[in-house]
Amino acid sequence: MSDILVISRHATVYSDLIAAAGIEAACFAEVESAMPHAAEAEILFGAPDLLAAVLPHCPKVRWVQSSWAGVKPLVECPRRDYRLTGVKELFGRPMTEFVLGWLLAVERRIPQRARARHWDNTPDGDVAGKTVGVMGTGSIGIAVARGCRSLGMTTHGLNTDGCSVEHFEACWPVAERLAFAAGLDYLVALLPDTPQTDNLIDAALLRALKPGAVFINAGRGNAVVLDDLLAALTNGTLRHAVLDVLPQEPLPDESPLWQVAGLSITSHTA
Amino acid sequence: MSDILVISRHATVYSDLIAAAGIEAACFAEVESAMPHAAEAEILFGAPDLLAAVLPHCPKVRWVQSSWAGVKPLVECPRRDYRLTGVKELFGRPMTEFVLGWLLAVERRIPQRARARHWDNTPDGDVAGKTVGVMGTGSIGIAVARGCRSLGMTTHGLNTDGCSVEHFEACWPVAERLAFAAGLDYLVALLPDTPQTDNLIDAALLRALKPGAVFINAGRGNAVVLDDLLAALTNGTLRHAVLDVLPQEPLPDESPLWQVAGLSITSHTA
Repeated sequence: MSDILVISRHATVYSDLIAAAGIEAACFAEVESAMPHAAEAEILFGAPDLLAAVLPHCPKVRWVQSSWAGVKPLVECPRRDYRLTGVKELFGRPMTEFVLGWLLAVERRIPQRARARHWDNTPDGDVAGKTVGVMGTGSIGIAVARGCRSLGMTTHGLNTDGCSVEHFEACWPVAERLAFAAGLDYLVALLPDTPQTDNLIDAALLRALKPGAVFINAGRGNAVVLDDLLAALTNGTLRHAVLDVLPQEPLPDESPLWQVAGLSITSHTA
Repeated sequence: MSDILVISRHATVYSDLIAAAGIEAACFAEVESAMPHAAEAEILFGAPDLLAAVLPHCPKVRWVQSSWAGVKPLVECPRRDYRLTGVKELFGRPMTEFVLGWLLAVERRIPQRARARHWDNTPDGDVAGKTVGVMGTGSIGIAVARGCRSLGMTTHGLNTDGCSVEHFEACWPVAERLAFAAGLDYLVALLPDTPQTDNLIDAALLRALKPGAVFINAGRGNAVVLDDLLAALTNGTLRHAVLDVLPQEPLPDESPLWQVAGLSITSHTA
């Protein structure tokens, strides 16, 4: 029996890739079929929520590699007798595409123009010359800042202690988040889900942005006070918000969030 | 009476800017009110179509500066006894935003996701790793190619003689346009309106692209055989097309083009 156990909704893709690399692994799309292999597994790879369900039944495990950047379901397990790693450096590029795509789409009114039925040569906005604030200056934040700068934006960063980071013109510590937010045209949150990031994006922070700012959350849902966000969309503090992540995922069809004007929900695809 | 005559739909904007620079100029939004100033004008600045109407009545003119990159209405005037200049180097950045914005919007299904009403975490596409062909490798084409490369695309160029140009991995001459088009994921036309660019984008060229390619025309309408483009959208040769320019502008409300699935019309705002 293989000592590598893969549990992922993309099990068939991984199975082919792993076989092509000449490595033997047992690959499953859900927990139930993986369970009989738990006892012998030394290495786990896959979705952290699925791995967390199997982990208590894996006495021999030495290494758990999440297929996501996030590892929260595993951190919440009490076990600490193995090496836990997430995916780093890999999500910078798609996240940059996500952030630039949405900022350009809002400025150039791409959703409206995509289904236009009348000539409208009202000039669109530019991202060049705008200031974007990025909450989270790890490898993903750095990639996003680099992309924003290549299009002529000024980049401000927020991190734990305000240390300076490449591709950011300036950084602020979390304790000075209102100074960080002051006058930003765009706010992009890329924060992990930790107790320190809970509710960082609240009414006070949103009020500090330039009126009519654009907000994108592609980190985790815990960082946003949803009621404050909805109020900011209603009173014009924000022009548009894009939520890739939410406290409850998938967001049910009956959620009123789907109907909020100026709010786009992108189903954790960033 | 001033020897500088400005005729532009943005006359009030230019009037303020010119006055702020301490220069005297007569600024008008349309031809009729400008006409009494034609006899004394030595320098004309503004929209080429408006200037062309006044030009025959300007015996003293020495220099005509178009406020656009294009100067076609002026070139069509028989007069050649003055210096004619267009705007260069200025449109690279907004054109790059336009092209990247639409490529990212199509790959990430931003128009659909902007008004989504259901959770849909089907993965979106990436622009990274794709090959974009740019028709026209002048200053605007170079800027667009630079932006595409910064997001990880491979850039191919088409120009008169196939000479190599910075930020393009390879260039083809117009005479080899089908070889240029072969297998492209994205086709971006930035061509000026000249007899040499008429109908370059026809059924043969579109068939050479990768099936499901994306086409953007932000040059001039004469380059596209519209019937061939519509057929390519219908038969799946193209996934999406964005036309910023058309043979007739503004496109009338009753044009059937507004109703074509997979076609976005952006009203000459690129």
